[in-house]
Amino acid sequence: MLYKKVLENPENYTFDVDSLGTPSVTSPIEGRQFIDNGERVLFGDDQQRFLQLVKEGRTLPSFEKAGPREKIYHDPAWTRAAIVTCGGLCPGLNDVIKSIVETLYFDYGVRHIFGIRYGFEGLIPEFKHEPMMLDPDAVDKIHEEGGTILGSSRGPQDVGRMCDTLERLNVNMLFCIGGDGTLRGARAIAEEVQRRKQKVSVIGVPKTIDNDLSFIGRSFGFETSVYSTSEVLTSAHVEAKGAVNGIGLVKLMGRDSGFIAAYASLANSVVNFCLIPEQPFELDGEQGLLRALERRLEGGKDHAVIVVAEGAGQDLFKDIPEQKDASGNVLKNDIGTFLKAKISAHFKAKNIPCALKYFDPSYTIRSVPAFGTDAILCYGLAENAVHAAMQGKNNMVVGHNGLHFTHVPIEMATMERQKVNVEGPLWYSVLGATRQNDYFNGRFK
Amino acid sequence: MLYKKVLENPENYTFDVDSLGTPSVTSPIEGRQFIDNGERVLFGDDQQRFLQLVKEGRTLPSFEKAGPREKIYHDPAWTRAAIVTCGGLCPGLNDVIKSIVETLYFDYGVRHIFGIRYGFEGLIPEFKHEPMMLDPDAVDKIHEEGGTILGSSRGPQDVGRMCDTLERLNVNMLFCIGGDGTLRGARAIAEEVQRRKQKVSVIGVPKTIDNDLSFIGRSFGFETSVYSTSEVLTSAHVEAKGAVNGIGLVKLMGRDSGFIAAYASLANSVVNFCLIPEQPFELDGEQGLLRALERRLEGGKDHAVIVVAEGAGQDLFKDIPEQKDASGNVLKNDIGTFLKAKISAHFKAKNIPCALKYFDPSYTIRSVPAFGTDAILCYGLAENAVHAAMQGKNNMVVGHNGLHFTHVPIEMATMERQKVNVEGPLWYSVLGATRQNDYFNGRFK
Amino acid sequence: MLYKKVLENPENYTFDVDSLGTPSVTSPIEGRQFIDNGERVLFGDDQQRFLQLVKEGRTLPSFEKAGPREKIYHDPAWTRAAIVTCGGLCPGLNDVIKSIVETLYFDYGVRHIFGIRYGFEGLIPEFKHEPMMLDPDAVDKIHEEGGTILGSSRGPQDVGRMCDTLERLNVNMLFCIGGDGTLRGARAIAEEVQRRKQKVSVIGVPKTIDNDLSFIGRSFGFETSVYSTSEVLTSAHVEAKGAVNGIGLVKLMGRDSGFIAAYASLANSVVNFCLIPEQPFELDGEQGLLRALERRLEGGKDHAVIVVAEGAGQDLFKDIPEQKDASGNVLKNDIGTFLKAKISAHFKAKNIPCALKYFDPSYTIRSVPAFGTDAILCYGLAENAVHAAMQGKNNMVVGHNGLHFTHVPIEMATMERQKVNVEGPLWYSVLGATRQNDYFNGRFK
Amino acid sequence: MLYKKVLENPENYTFDVDSLGTPSVTSPIEGRQFIDNGERVLFGDDQQRFLQLVKEGRTLPSFEKAGPREKIYHDPAWTRAAIVTCGGLCPGLNDVIKSIVETLYFDYGVRHIFGIRYGFEGLIPEFKHEPMMLDPDAVDKIHEEGGTILGSSRGPQDVGRMCDTLERLNVNMLFCIGGDGTLRGARAIAEEVQRRKQKVSVIGVPKTIDNDLSFIGRSFGFETSVYSTSEVLTSAHVEAKGAVNGIGLVKLMGRDSGFIAAYASLANSVVNFCLIPEQPFELDGEQGLLRALERRLEGGKDHAVIVVAEGAGQDLFKDIPEQKDASGNVLKNDIGTFLKAKISAHFKAKNIPCALKYFDPSYTIRSVPAFGTDAILCYGLAENAVHAAMQGKNNMVVGHNGLHFTHVPIEMATMERQKVNVEGPLWYSVLGATRQNDYFNGRFK
Repeated sequence: MLYKKVLENPENYTFDVDSLGTPSVTSPIEGRQFIDNGERVLFGDDQQRFLQLVKEGRTLPSFEKAGPREKIYHDPAWTRAAIVTCGGLCPGLNDVIKSIVETLYFDYGVRHIFGIRYGFEGLIPEFKHEPMMLDPDAVDKIHEEGGTILGSSRGPQDVGRMCDTLERLNVNMLFCIGGDGTLRGARAIAEEVQRRKQKVSVIGVPKTIDNDLSFIGRSFGFETSVYSTSEVLTSAHVEAKGAVNGIGLVKLMGRDSGFIAAYASLANSVVNFCLIPEQPFELDGEQGLLRALERRLEGGKDHAVIVVAEGAGQDLFKDIPEQKDASGNVLKNDIGTFLKAKISAHFKAKNIPCALKYFDPSYTIRSVPAFGTDAILCYGLAENAVHAAMQGKNNMVVGHNGLHFTHVPIEMATMERQKVNVEGPLWYSVLGATRQNDYFNGRFK
Repeated sequence: MLYKKVLENPENYTFDVDSLGTPSVTSPIEGRQFIDNGERVLFGDDQQRFLQLVKEGRTLPSFEKAGPREKIYHDPAWTRAAIVTCGGLCPGLNDVIKSIVETLYFDYGVRHIFGIRYGFEGLIPEFKHEPMMLDPDAVDKIHEEGGTILGSSRGPQDVGRMCDTLERLNVNMLFCIGGDGTLRGARAIAEEVQRRKQKVSVIGVPKTIDNDLSFIGRSFGFETSVYSTSEVLTSAHVEAKGAVNGIGLVKLMGRDSGFIAAYASLANSVVNFCLIPEQPFELDGEQGLLRALERRLEGGKDHAVIVVAEGAGQDLFKDIPEQKDASGNVLKNDIGTFLKAKISAHFKAKNIPCALKYFDPSYTIRSVPAFGTDAILCYGLAENAVHAAMQGKNNMVVGHNGLHFTHVPIEMATMERQKVNVEGPLWYSVLGATRQNDYFNGRFK
Repeated sequence: MLYKKVLENPENYTFDVDSLGTPSVTSPIEGRQFIDNGERVLFGDDQQRFLQLVKEGRTLPSFEKAGPREKIYHDPAWTRAAIVTCGGLCPGLNDVIKSIVETLYFDYGVRHIFGIRYGFEGLIPEFKHEPMMLDPDAVDKIHEEGGTILGSSRGPQDVGRMCDTLERLNVNMLFCIGGDGTLRGARAIAEEVQRRKQKVSVIGVPKTIDNDLSFIGRSFGFETSVYSTSEVLTSAHVEAKGAVNGIGLVKLMGRDSGFIAAYASLANSVVNFCLIPEQPFELDGEQGLLRALERRLEGGKDHAVIVVAEGAGQDLFKDIPEQKDASGNVLKNDIGTFLKAKISAHFKAKNIPCALKYFDPSYTIRSVPAFGTDAILCYGLAENAVHAAMQGKNNMVVGHNGLHFTHVPIEMATMERQKVNVEGPLWYSVLGATRQNDYFNGRFK
Repeated sequence: MLYKKVLENPENYTFDVDSLGTPSVTSPIEGRQFIDNGERVLFGDDQQRFLQLVKEGRTLPSFEKAGPREKIYHDPAWTRAAIVTCGGLCPGLNDVIKSIVETLYFDYGVRHIFGIRYGFEGLIPEFKHEPMMLDPDAVDKIHEEGGTILGSSRGPQDVGRMCDTLERLNVNMLFCIGGDGTLRGARAIAEEVQRRKQKVSVIGVPKTIDNDLSFIGRSFGFETSVYSTSEVLTSAHVEAKGAVNGIGLVKLMGRDSGFIAAYASLANSVVNFCLIPEQPFELDGEQGLLRALERRLEGGKDHAVIVVAEGAGQDLFKDIPEQKDASGNVLKNDIGTFLKAKISAHFKAKNIPCALKYFDPSYTIRSVPAFGTDAILCYGLAENAVHAAMQGKNNMVVGHNGLHFTHVPIEMATMERQKVNVEGPLWYSVLGATRQNDYFNGRFK
């Protein structure tokens, strides 16, 4: 895993974030402590390794600390900012937009803020998506709604033409809210504007409902998504208990990482089997899922609830050729409907009564507004994205370590997906809550 | 419609409810006004017709009034009651069970109450579903959960063998909570016990989440279901607005009647098209759904939300042979996935961008607990079911007219499905809220 | 009770609703069945009494049937409508406003709709509350929020000056959404405009969260309020169970009628004592509340939940002189804090440990948006208010009997408050659910 | 602040956690990585200071890392555990209880688990609160309910007698879930059992809805509380907007620290004034709250929402003598009703119309069940409390730093209350979201 590599060779992972030039404008912010430019935030908390690195005279793994600086690069009076949201919906998009606008407007006095419509399409003239003009009144209540007021789209657009649009609009800072693919697009824009010597700060706010980007801490929308799964798990449980050998099968988000499935199974402990991409499983045989289900239903428990991440069990589809979506993501085979068919067929063949109810709630989960502390995380990310942009930073995203916000080069955030460590405490807690290995192994406590 | 036939010939529809014999036991209920045996509740409120019927010396359409009687038939001390829930889940099942138990226990002092497990299966010994013993402690908190603590199953069982079980258990009242098929089963039991001269009151509590049984008034669970649809409609709206030409397509319950779809479209007025079984529609052509969708998306509205009842548009599947489920209901062709495919293909063929998101929330809607006034309706139905049973009534369900509860012969309740009147105020309100005919017709106000 | 008087002498209660003149304009509504002017809706369903009245050649109690007419009085092209909301908040106000606007706009093509700000104050120039201009875009999403976008205020204003304002604005229909006091104000306006021969239709939409107006059926907002009480009752229950002899005391709305308290106690059956204005109770003595509480806590149940309507137990404040609020309503003495003090003092004096937690959630309950079927009721009332106004009706409110909407003279709706019948099935169900008389009497089942 | 002192002199704050003896029993846990006894978790992430400390050859601030060890102290087969919950309710209590029971039962095979009733009272025989026997079935669904199934009480009990009870019951591990006062009680027990050489592990799970304990990271229940405030803030906003110069005044928890008030104001950004204990304010004068409110209402905003923490503005009550509650906490003067009276009187005196609505939702907020990631935090704390107890740790609480769980001596956790840093980013964000200083200062952006 990437985390281990960083601890082994922190030197290889300690970059300065790109910068458009030396900040020389005095910040208009008053009554607040500024962050010194040299301040850094440690990555991780492994004391032993840190002491060892220090003894060896080496670097500790760390990121630039985010926050307002006394000197900034862009002159607020001349600043023209643009915001774009890309990819699938995620709770908190509107909170991020709102807070970027309010911080630009109230903290820095910026008065020209464009909302780019429908993702990167909005930067390509042919699509004829006129930008919205944003100010505090326009965004006052948008946090009460899910989705994004800007609209979104998938897939890349021509980098040169997007930079042309930024130039034509005289935009000097672009906030890109999106996931893996979007951030790669943002990186391409950031590198192109540098090549052209356009003075545009390209700053990402990392969006991944799956919580699978590296180095950025828990991603916004994740907490809300976990909370939102609770209701559908309760429904699956109620349906399962309502029938003889009832099975509630719930497919949740998680293309490459099982964080939502794992957290959901802990947050509402009605789940008996949690299947994630990081932990392969078999369908048939003595250790297979079908036999495990039989053991559960035989053993006096007359129902079962199964949570499956959409990326789980992909090796069960060996013979099917790979397909990709508009953003270039490999399309997963539909493990949900696959399991639904296999389980029903299995019990029918064995003449065991079984009523399987299938749930696929992804759109409902991701389209809600962000709640409570998750909304606050959105504000923190957005605020610090604005501070970074005003400093003239470029080609970076805002991250956090739970205590402080950080500047993370886009390159690092997209280097490798974060995964559930199946030997770590999260997965162990899931195994403890579900007791699923008892059913897979046939040994009970 | 049945309602018109009743108004025309009320004599044909005015039955006495079956009775096991003359009530001669004094009710243990104190401090409460009893209902006289002759009291009846008018059906409908059509003054003109009523006056005309009276002038002609004819009968007014009416039902026996439900409620406690001074004399009852079954001796509470010897009473052994059984409760069974059948068919699909519906909000309020546990409220009905709870209230039957509490009324039997506290009002009449009945101490032997069986909960039959998993529907009619629980009355057939081979299935080995042991009955639960129910008392107020056992049901104290069950109303906080959706589903049914008794479990349910679909399909009929052998009537003779079920009656044998009732005889063996010495049960003298059976409460059947279920829909059309279940009530037909209850009627068969009621008629068989009468044939055998078993003194068993078979009383139904009509369950239809679709609100499509006749003469029983608004059915329990319906109000909660309508409320529960709101969240998914909001999600569909958020998803639709989040993409260029986004379409949110939501399939809701409603096999033969579009009540849930119609009410849902009114209760959360984000719906642009509401499609129900009672109102056929075409897919293609100038008046077709596809052209209507185009008109909406062309007309400056860049999104659309469609609600479709599961029984809508069945004539679009002309060539597919009919199939039935375990309860004998004709299986509907899946209009949801059909429309999803047709709409996507249409816009792709026309090279119009379009992002369709499909929602099928039925299990999530029906598995919640009953809320507020809907829970209170459950209690009223259950309470009056117990009063009817104690009086020795048989072969009936409890209904209501909004003001009073009534005794309705099972035969009448299952005579004909209640439908949305597409010339009446409900449907007109839906047309007003959605403005869908403007899009079908191409004329706008 | 008023209901009995009506059944005895329906002639005294059968009015024609006031009318500005003979409708002669053809309604622009198409594709819909119109209501004939003579159609009436029966009030009640007492078959015996109805038959007797018919035999005696007398009138049946009934109201004019609401709904669209073929001929209307006001010319839509010249119509200038105004909407005003008065008194305390109630769920559904925005739904009513929205639906009045949409029906005026889409069904009749009315293009001038004023939103009067802050109740009747908005009709008095000195207050300088400029009216809002309303159209479908302005009200598109207001149903998602509680409260009223127009604002509200309490208390009457000078009738002559309000009519002057209507004249100056050329308003020919005024929709007044409010309770008892507001409707009396509306009646005064209606009578004044008739005196002046101003052609203004004054139509009320009756608002009473307490559900205590006569002849109008269940009032809008009531269903939502009942639902909203559930959460606070659960909190009170959790707090009560969390302490030795914990008592959760919840004051709910209900100045003169205990409908909310009664329904709330049924809808979430954690309540042990429900105290309402219609059922006096003593504090001290063997039959008093304090002794009843002791019995409950002694009897092995170590907690209690009490719901008290704000108008309950007012005779316990004999010596305190009466006070009134701005709308002229008698101010109730605060039974909630009174009971809180009395109960705490009582157990302290007896040296019985007791932890009382007090809840006063009224503002939280009344400020939510209307849900599901309650929202639909709002639309129906509003739609029919518009139809009535267009017909030139005056000095009336819209009511319903569960099946049909009706025209009810303001005079009748405000004649006498509707009360919980403490000998009827609602109260009996509450007694059954709480078992409170067992504690008051000291006899248990 | 304590945090600074720790960074200056980490040596003074680096303790070993108390231990009953050398662990020599092999843990029954399989298939999981154990934590080495020496592993520590850094406190904070200040790289500069850490490097400096290392250069000076000094200690880095850190805590023992929590988690399962290969060798444990208590023999599971002989273990008798007890769980007690004290003080006010907090979301997540039942999750903590559930997870302690499940970890003891499934991970270690412990079969004797007592639930002590009603706080420390349950350890004193006179109160006659019989303990509950706990196992996985007993706790299976308790996480769905707020409160604590064990009940709670306030105030200390005799330490010697509590230790006698533990001895009599043969209890060798006591889990104390509670706040400041409870943990001090737990510390007294821990020290007394050490004095007596009773082999009892006393392990705390820190409970503080105010999030004001030091060194333990975000406390369980806090996230849920923040989320739960959202609804009441929306109500306050709706009520405020519904009246001319409407003011919604909401008192939230926060006796010494304003975390809930601050987070609530960020999580639902309808708040205009957030008043917390850490930031004194004046009532009168040009910089006072009353003048600030006037400025807001004058300035075209016709409403205001005020959030006040219960411990805010205590210096406004100079002349009132201090009082304490049963747990020894200084009772705060009621700032909520004080402000309500002062604001109303002020505007009345100035003859400015003003409708103030007051909300005091504390019991409703704290009695809900824990949600989503907050529930998961409860499980993590509980799991690690059990691991610590099995290792023979004593006199400690479980904390976390966002990444890892830690062992924190009770002495440190209760040393000093955590406060909102009014010069830090949290408070700055609140000022940004409310813009309240603009109103206090009379300068607007």
